[in-house]
Amino acid sequence: VAERLIQSLATTEALADLFSDRSVLAALLQFEAGLARAQARLKLIPQAAADAIAAAARPGNFDADVLAAEILRAGTPGIPISKALTEAVRRTDPSAAGFVHWGATSQDVADTAMVLLLQQAQPIIESDLVRLQSALRGLAEHHSTTVMLGRTLMQAAPPVTFGLKAAGWLDSISACTQRLHEAFSDALVLQFGGASGTLAALGERGDEVGRELARELDLKYPSAPWHTRREGLAALVCACGILAGALGKMARDISLLMQNEVAEAAEPGGQGRGGSSTMPHKRNPIGCSLTLASANRLPALVASFLSCMIQEHERGVGGWQAEWPILSQVMQSTGVAAASMREVAEGLTFDAARMRANINATHGLIFAEKAMMLLAPKLGRDGAHKLVEAATKTSVANSRPLAEVLAEMSEVSQHLDPATIRDLDDPEKYLGCAEIFRQRLLNASKNRNSPAKE
Amino acid sequence: VAERLIQSLATTEALADLFSDRSVLAALLQFEAGLARAQARLKLIPQAAADAIAAAARPGNFDADVLAAEILRAGTPGIPISKALTEAVRRTDPSAAGFVHWGATSQDVADTAMVLLLQQAQPIIESDLVRLQSALRGLAEHHSTTVMLGRTLMQAAPPVTFGLKAAGWLDSISACTQRLHEAFSDALVLQFGGASGTLAALGERGDEVGRELARELDLKYPSAPWHTRREGLAALVCACGILAGALGKMARDISLLMQNEVAEAAEPGGQGRGGSSTMPHKRNPIGCSLTLASANRLPALVASFLSCMIQEHERGVGGWQAEWPILSQVMQSTGVAAASMREVAEGLTFDAARMRANINATHGLIFAEKAMMLLAPKLGRDGAHKLVEAATKTSVANSRPLAEVLAEMSEVSQHLDPATIRDLDDPEKYLGCAEIFRQRLLNASKNRNSPAKE
Amino acid sequence: VAERLIQSLATTEALADLFSDRSVLAALLQFEAGLARAQARLKLIPQAAADAIAAAARPGNFDADVLAAEILRAGTPGIPISKALTEAVRRTDPSAAGFVHWGATSQDVADTAMVLLLQQAQPIIESDLVRLQSALRGLAEHHSTTVMLGRTLMQAAPPVTFGLKAAGWLDSISACTQRLHEAFSDALVLQFGGASGTLAALGERGDEVGRELARELDLKYPSAPWHTRREGLAALVCACGILAGALGKMARDISLLMQNEVAEAAEPGGQGRGGSSTMPHKRNPIGCSLTLASANRLPALVASFLSCMIQEHERGVGGWQAEWPILSQVMQSTGVAAASMREVAEGLTFDAARMRANINATHGLIFAEKAMMLLAPKLGRDGAHKLVEAATKTSVANSRPLAEVLAEMSEVSQHLDPATIRDLDDPEKYLGCAEIFRQRLLNASKNRNSPAKE
Amino acid sequence: VAERLIQSLATTEALADLFSDRSVLAALLQFEAGLARAQARLKLIPQAAADAIAAAARPGNFDADVLAAEILRAGTPGIPISKALTEAVRRTDPSAAGFVHWGATSQDVADTAMVLLLQQAQPIIESDLVRLQSALRGLAEHHSTTVMLGRTLMQAAPPVTFGLKAAGWLDSISACTQRLHEAFSDALVLQFGGASGTLAALGERGDEVGRELARELDLKYPSAPWHTRREGLAALVCACGILAGALGKMARDISLLMQNEVAEAAEPGGQGRGGSSTMPHKRNPIGCSLTLASANRLPALVASFLSCMIQEHERGVGGWQAEWPILSQVMQSTGVAAASMREVAEGLTFDAARMRANINATHGLIFAEKAMMLLAPKLGRDGAHKLVEAATKTSVANSRPLAEVLAEMSEVSQHLDPATIRDLDDPEKYLGCAEIFRQRLLNASKNRNSPAKE
Repeated sequence: VAERLIQSLATTEALADLFSDRSVLAALLQFEAGLARAQARLKLIPQAAADAIAAAARPGNFDADVLAAEILRAGTPGIPISKALTEAVRRTDPSAAGFVHWGATSQDVADTAMVLLLQQAQPIIESDLVRLQSALRGLAEHHSTTVMLGRTLMQAAPPVTFGLKAAGWLDSISACTQRLHEAFSDALVLQFGGASGTLAALGERGDEVGRELARELDLKYPSAPWHTRREGLAALVCACGILAGALGKMARDISLLMQNEVAEAAEPGGQGRGGSSTMPHKRNPIGCSLTLASANRLPALVASFLSCMIQEHERGVGGWQAEWPILSQVMQSTGVAAASMREVAEGLTFDAARMRANINATHGLIFAEKAMMLLAPKLGRDGAHKLVEAATKTSVANSRPLAEVLAEMSEVSQHLDPATIRDLDDPEKYLGCAEIFRQRLLNASKNRNSPAKE
Repeated sequence: VAERLIQSLATTEALADLFSDRSVLAALLQFEAGLARAQARLKLIPQAAADAIAAAARPGNFDADVLAAEILRAGTPGIPISKALTEAVRRTDPSAAGFVHWGATSQDVADTAMVLLLQQAQPIIESDLVRLQSALRGLAEHHSTTVMLGRTLMQAAPPVTFGLKAAGWLDSISACTQRLHEAFSDALVLQFGGASGTLAALGERGDEVGRELARELDLKYPSAPWHTRREGLAALVCACGILAGALGKMARDISLLMQNEVAEAAEPGGQGRGGSSTMPHKRNPIGCSLTLASANRLPALVASFLSCMIQEHERGVGGWQAEWPILSQVMQSTGVAAASMREVAEGLTFDAARMRANINATHGLIFAEKAMMLLAPKLGRDGAHKLVEAATKTSVANSRPLAEVLAEMSEVSQHLDPATIRDLDDPEKYLGCAEIFRQRLLNASKNRNSPAKE
Repeated sequence: VAERLIQSLATTEALADLFSDRSVLAALLQFEAGLARAQARLKLIPQAAADAIAAAARPGNFDADVLAAEILRAGTPGIPISKALTEAVRRTDPSAAGFVHWGATSQDVADTAMVLLLQQAQPIIESDLVRLQSALRGLAEHHSTTVMLGRTLMQAAPPVTFGLKAAGWLDSISACTQRLHEAFSDALVLQFGGASGTLAALGERGDEVGRELARELDLKYPSAPWHTRREGLAALVCACGILAGALGKMARDISLLMQNEVAEAAEPGGQGRGGSSTMPHKRNPIGCSLTLASANRLPALVASFLSCMIQEHERGVGGWQAEWPILSQVMQSTGVAAASMREVAEGLTFDAARMRANINATHGLIFAEKAMMLLAPKLGRDGAHKLVEAATKTSVANSRPLAEVLAEMSEVSQHLDPATIRDLDDPEKYLGCAEIFRQRLLNASKNRNSPAKE
Repeated sequence: VAERLIQSLATTEALADLFSDRSVLAALLQFEAGLARAQARLKLIPQAAADAIAAAARPGNFDADVLAAEILRAGTPGIPISKALTEAVRRTDPSAAGFVHWGATSQDVADTAMVLLLQQAQPIIESDLVRLQSALRGLAEHHSTTVMLGRTLMQAAPPVTFGLKAAGWLDSISACTQRLHEAFSDALVLQFGGASGTLAALGERGDEVGRELARELDLKYPSAPWHTRREGLAALVCACGILAGALGKMARDISLLMQNEVAEAAEPGGQGRGGSSTMPHKRNPIGCSLTLASANRLPALVASFLSCMIQEHERGVGGWQAEWPILSQVMQSTGVAAASMREVAEGLTFDAARMRANINATHGLIFAEKAMMLLAPKLGRDGAHKLVEAATKTSVANSRPLAEVLAEMSEVSQHLDPATIRDLDDPEKYLGCAEIFRQRLLNASKNRNSPAKE
């Protein structure tokens, strides 16, 4: 039963494929084949048995719908998959059938399969994040002097530069990417513990088998099985949640800049994206909306995973069983957000003239703070405050630039020279440390251990 | 791309089918065909066009994978589906193609399709809830005298009856079922508003079309479109979350009763359920674990849906786009919990002897409260307290029944006659209002407006 | 230890008072005094004892900080409060001390105290909701002809009326208010069950005592104790979460309208609200930000409460113990959102001229859909589409009104008379069912069972 | 207004004090005084003004209830606090009043104050975690040979050691403690950006002031202000959520072991903790219940914080305003869980005899897996399986040890020598790698960078 449509806005093609039946089956079987190979290498089972198991362990041999029904009844993917594989092996080599899943428990195969899927999800998601950062770096580097309104509480505030804004997005996403990268590394760990997590069925050889199996699957070997310790996966899920927040912040900013009344930037259109059939010029914030949708879903997925951490004794009742859908949705939602913002950043258009026009439309009121800081040393803060307050009132009432109004006030011209007053509403002259901060953010993001550099 | 395995523990076969591509496509097309039919009936479009549209609107005509990719680009299912249908119609009747999706907006088809899916989910979920309640009613009716330990903070407490416990589960689930039923009714509402929710493209006939379309689809017709008003769906999601909590409570109770050391009840095995290949007698709490897994996922899904309610102006950016996966998971998770507990309740086994044995194993200490209540009127509360405290210490130290210890204390035998002391640790004699409460709970659940009765 | 500052943005004065130590103590003591009175009336304890207990049960007699420390150790408020009350009674009437908390369990007093606090929270929150609705009704009634841009995905769309928008807010909040009202009614229920929920310590009189106590406290009497059945409270919490979503949607809309570049509406300033010392004209969306902050917190609080529903057997381990802070935050967060939006709605200013100007600034492109609907019957949909697409391109390129551009195209003037073309970008002529919907929403909200009417 | 009672189970005394009005006020004023000192040192304001500001900046000078009301109106703590401080300074040194809050914005003081509170929360929480780990290390080291049932899905499984279980708790909490420690380090960063985050009001000196201020407050100085970048705080909140999950898992395990029917371990009683007045021997899992309550609340608090990360442009509307209560509850809930489990671990009692008795009560059925592994090489897996299945059925039916039943079967005695059969149900002989894993977990936790070591 295909289920692509219902989640079509919550995944990408690559990640939907990764969590498809064929791919999940492949991961489950990779564990069983790897286990047999490792055990054969250690002479625990015959090489011929391992060969037969590996040969049978191909997704095409199994019916996912039948397995899904059996998994629901068994309450775990492990039992049906090892039974089905045993039967498949028995058909070609009856003597090998008994060596399937030797000494393992059902959670071993289920957890390791999930880890193998995460291993494949990592480069898919990270490659979008690397490209996204590269696009943002470009914006941050080229817009050191492109001024635009600062906006606090969605109201006009003293100016910033578009470069600083982009550098802020960049460094935030860069920090989140690094956290995600480390969390992936920490989470890509073999699960292998047998019934109670002691590998007792393998006697003294259990640990050796585990090590060999980890090598076989290119996973880390842990201190001990982690059947009911989920903090590694939890950290990965949290890293996705935090990243989604950072991507969502950028998406919200851009969707606000795209409003017709603001019109300072726009995400790219093209290829069926966000157009309107009757309004060909129209660009809807589709990439932003997909990202914000992910940012709406991820916090709860994180909470859900954290709730599931309360797992009883050596295998939980209800916590563990909830994890698969959560993890696959976390990966897919994170991936669609990363891919969407990558596309948005790579094709982002912006309108520097409109940015300046929007500053001008405030009649210089956003520089009232500056006027006050200039006058306070002369008139005292209270005096300066009263004066500027009066000037802004006049400015608003008559729709005249604040600088003009101030220039006409004798208390002002007495203390500030004409050039200073003229410069008052020049955004370039009121950027404070914007440039210092922009450069420092760029450097910080460069110096981080990003996935691309390894 | 089929995605059954990854969510195999989070759905049932019927609900997985309902949210499959074919079924989602059918719902989307049902809207478009219904719209054409309604408009033809109102003479807004030619009947021949409506016939051509209805003929083309069959899921088999469309490729879900292609559509999924287009939906991701468009940021909405509505545009690709109406385009694809237009093309399909054009192939058979070019003159009819222009009448597809006439006057509707993309969210109209997407929302109504989801409502049509919810319409089908309702009887699937409710039929399990009806059977679950019937099974619980049986337990509650037949166990008015089966005594068992009360347990507070998972510690032994004065006795209850199994009938009272089952009646509690029943009435709680009955109340939640009724809430769910009403929430379904309230949510099964047509969405039809056109671009800005005014149906302007249909001039003065919009409202008439909407009414006709609602009739066509057997949905309620709302006061106005609800593109960015989601409280009806939110209430449905919340009703599922509350129900999952009630089912989860029952599942937790039963999984605790199933522990080897307690062994008072067990969910049924059979058909690949929860067995162990080497321990054929073993019964794992599989139904309970699936239910608890749902109860672990649902609260966060509820939160997620509530977060999405902040939808901007006439169509949201990021809130609406997140809803489909949430709603489908809510339905499927609720459904698997209802189905699991239905199976658990219908096949629940219990061990009345073990229940009594577990009471006896406390040496009557759970009746210390009773002893104190009996002695307080004679010795004052403080005196009674001191006495009983001493007796329980002796009882614990020597592993002797509290009643025996008390019987040997002169301060006790002086005030209480031997029969009273003998009865002290008789659970049947310390059930208070258990029977009154059991009957009242049974009545309350009977008098509720349950889905089965309509 | 006062903790007002840290949550100063998350409560109102009235609700902070309600959940203050004095008020919580009063509610706890109200239960104990009420129990004693009820038992005296039923001759279970001496009237003199009840009088002594009621006399001692005054908040001023207790030290909240000491109690808080003891409650943390006991893991429940019930034990320390009944001990402290017992000691207080003992000081005035030693013989009465033994009758404190007679037959009750610690959860009885804790749950009932919370219910008594909810009983007081209801009118506080509902009175703001009633006033909010009344203000919205005014806006919805007076703005049937005030046109403004529809906005989908935060992009310009065909026009709506301000009256329709306000009617949408109104009806949504009205529906949520009714749900909240019913949930309060359902939740205001006595808790009284004794140790295991059977009232065994009171023998056969338990049920009678419960009924009398419920009457005494003006609470409903339930079918049975609900120590580990929390669906009633859960429904109340959910109703708050849904309401917060509806209020948050309105707050988001208004904060978007308040942007300098949009400037169509503004929440009131005054009294230290949202001003800027240097920019006296500035109005920050403070009420909206407080409401959106509540809407950010509530979904998770709901999830948290639902997670806590899994309560074991007759008293839970960890679920119940988490409820008090959640419930108090839910009430306070809901209350601050209701109060904030009440103030916003009552003082909302709007600028109809700016609304029209923002429509005009789109050069009529939002009417492209209308042009296409007019031309389609003449040219076929494809032909109409091609023509309008070309016209919008010209309109955008030359910044000219779409109607003008169309008027100059012979394919258009051939089919549409000049008046029709002239009317094309008249917003009043493209409102579809806006007026029908506005009136229907007003009626729906009027006919609902609102708290004010009872 | 004190609000201790309502959250008495959700905090500790030390953390309640930390987030009390006096302490919050102190942190807010510490920023303002520190800013004045830093600016005086850099000759931006007169030293006398800085002295006057520092002198006035004492919590006792301000009325928290009045401030709370003003903060609610202003929508931010920053404006009322700087106004009130300005007035306080004016009373002693009018000329200094104008230098209060010089060049800062309201979010600068609010965010930095929160960071200063987190700085103080860190050692409070970490000291409990260090002691908890030390207690767990003791248990893990001393119980390498104490055997107990493994339990999967809360059903009996092959044995583990108590030392392994404790080592698992230890290493998990150790990993979480390290993550928390690093997250604290990353989050203790100055906020200082002025109105738009460019420090424009301070001209070219802004960056210098920021650096000096960070030194003054012993905080890190960031690359740039982080007014709408919250990933650092989010990571701290997530670290708390993950830790709560690990603590909750341990609490669940212990509360299960404390059940009367299991009785293998118990948390300490004493000092009003969890006792029952009539059952002095009774120990309720109070520490566990407080921890599980925290683990019930934290996931949603994490989700809430993540939801708030979507903060618009240079200052958010609704995201930022929700953070204070969330952060204070996260710290307090985490702290009460850490303190509770510290107390539980330090006083944990256990009953090795009962552990063994519970193993024996399974009649050796948990060793069926072992029997099968022994027989499979001789009889093939299928043959072995059939045999063992039959034996377990007999064992259950007759309540006889599985080893005895097997010993009597000729197919078994033919292949296994009597000693092997006799050893079959010896738990010490079926521990697999338990000891290897225990030691490795102990080493892993030792080698981690724990807070105590710095």
